[in-house]
Amino acid sequence: MNKLSVIKIGGKVIDEPDQFEYFLKRIAGTAGKKILIHGGGKQIDRLSNRLGIDVNMLDGRRITDSGTLEVTMMVLAGLLNKKMVSLLQSLQCNAIGLTGADGNLIRSRKREVLDGVDYGWVGDIEEVNTALIIELLKNDYVPVIASLTHSGKGSMLNTNADTVAAEIAVAMSSGYETDLIYCSDVPGVLKDIHDPSSVIHEIRIKDYESLKKNNVVSKGMFPKIDNAFGAINRNVARVFLISSVDIGNYFDNGKVNGTVILK
Amino acid sequence: MNKLSVIKIGGKVIDEPDQFEYFLKRIAGTAGKKILIHGGGKQIDRLSNRLGIDVNMLDGRRITDSGTLEVTMMVLAGLLNKKMVSLLQSLQCNAIGLTGADGNLIRSRKREVLDGVDYGWVGDIEEVNTALIIELLKNDYVPVIASLTHSGKGSMLNTNADTVAAEIAVAMSSGYETDLIYCSDVPGVLKDIHDPSSVIHEIRIKDYESLKKNNVVSKGMFPKIDNAFGAINRNVARVFLISSVDIGNYFDNGKVNGTVILK
Repeated sequence: MNKLSVIKIGGKVIDEPDQFEYFLKRIAGTAGKKILIHGGGKQIDRLSNRLGIDVNMLDGRRITDSGTLEVTMMVLAGLLNKKMVSLLQSLQCNAIGLTGADGNLIRSRKREVLDGVDYGWVGDIEEVNTALIIELLKNDYVPVIASLTHSGKGSMLNTNADTVAAEIAVAMSSGYETDLIYCSDVPGVLKDIHDPSSVIHEIRIKDYESLKKNNVVSKGMFPKIDNAFGAINRNVARVFLISSVDIGNYFDNGKVNGTVILK
Repeated sequence: MNKLSVIKIGGKVIDEPDQFEYFLKRIAGTAGKKILIHGGGKQIDRLSNRLGIDVNMLDGRRITDSGTLEVTMMVLAGLLNKKMVSLLQSLQCNAIGLTGADGNLIRSRKREVLDGVDYGWVGDIEEVNTALIIELLKNDYVPVIASLTHSGKGSMLNTNADTVAAEIAVAMSSGYETDLIYCSDVPGVLKDIHDPSSVIHEIRIKDYESLKKNNVVSKGMFPKIDNAFGAINRNVARVFLISSVDIGNYFDNGKVNGTVILK
């Protein structure tokens, strides 16, 4: 099976010129099939503030009223996606920017109001149609996907970028040996969130329960690791949780300073 | 040769719910290869105003400083492009949104300062690479292109939507019998701009000079018609200048209430 890297990059990295430049150079300079996924939470906050739109988060998820949905569309699909695509093009990487609406890539369901909590225009993924990205990968394009999906009923929906990346990786695993790489501003899964050197380099399913029980991993990391095991259990080969500057090690030899999660 | 329709729609039509809905329904409901191009001047003005960014126009062209470029990227590639794509998807039309940066579709050159006039981040088209859209059309996708191009040096550039549509139509003419259709809020080329019933239904090159000399056509229309003849002279089959509600007539029988421009 051909190999594929599904690489998610967060808005914090996009905001750091040196890290972002290094990241894009390594993406452009390395052969092999890849798909990029990006969020942009910081940048959405910033435009919301400039427009006087309240930022409301609940359990790390953005309450997305109609004004916030427009901001999200503008920042993710307009500003950040096209910034990444034009920079990659300047590095001779034939990138193409997409959202979940384009080519019906990701259809999701507007989250229902539950226990009085209305997340607004937030979508939970129902279906990933890989036809378009398979066609693009065959022709050596690099898809760059903003974390927006569509309802099938005429609306865009805001969807968590980690989840978009995981679902794309899972869907692609039937045709490719797929790695899922989460690049952020932290070096990996830490035993002590205050100590960047306390990275756990490898986690397997059988170890995870005891790590949890013994409070070895900080609680804030649980959703991300659960997400990762969800992908592993659905045929993704490996999941990496690394800092963006660690991407070079991944490309060079598949070994990283951060964390790899395996079956 | 297969037929292709390159259809440009302006921001004023996107702003009118009834006209916009009719336009999208006819696009989605009609078989045949097509490419949509859109601008969004009104919507760019609106976001600029909300953000306190000055709107400066010169001869109908937008002076595009770095703040205005960001607004243009956000409104065109983010808000309007994804609105159109998600609405078309809800009508079972497999649309895919693009800019000139995606797949290196349109590379342009940043306009130089001339006679003290600096248009800023405005791009004049140098090269159209049709590989991506030819591939997409073969697979029955409908490309929806926002009027942004890229420099090849890492920047997006703001490019006039009429020009983008004309250059795409010209580039596609080598492989398709291509019509270029400008849809706006005016019914066609008018003898009297105050009289919507004064449409000139057909203009040929041989007639145009006399129409110009005798002041039959209002001056404001000259750039648009010159643009149209430029396309006709580079192998585009027909150019239509019609109102958006006239698109149904074009699809039904190729005859419109507006203006058709022929060799």
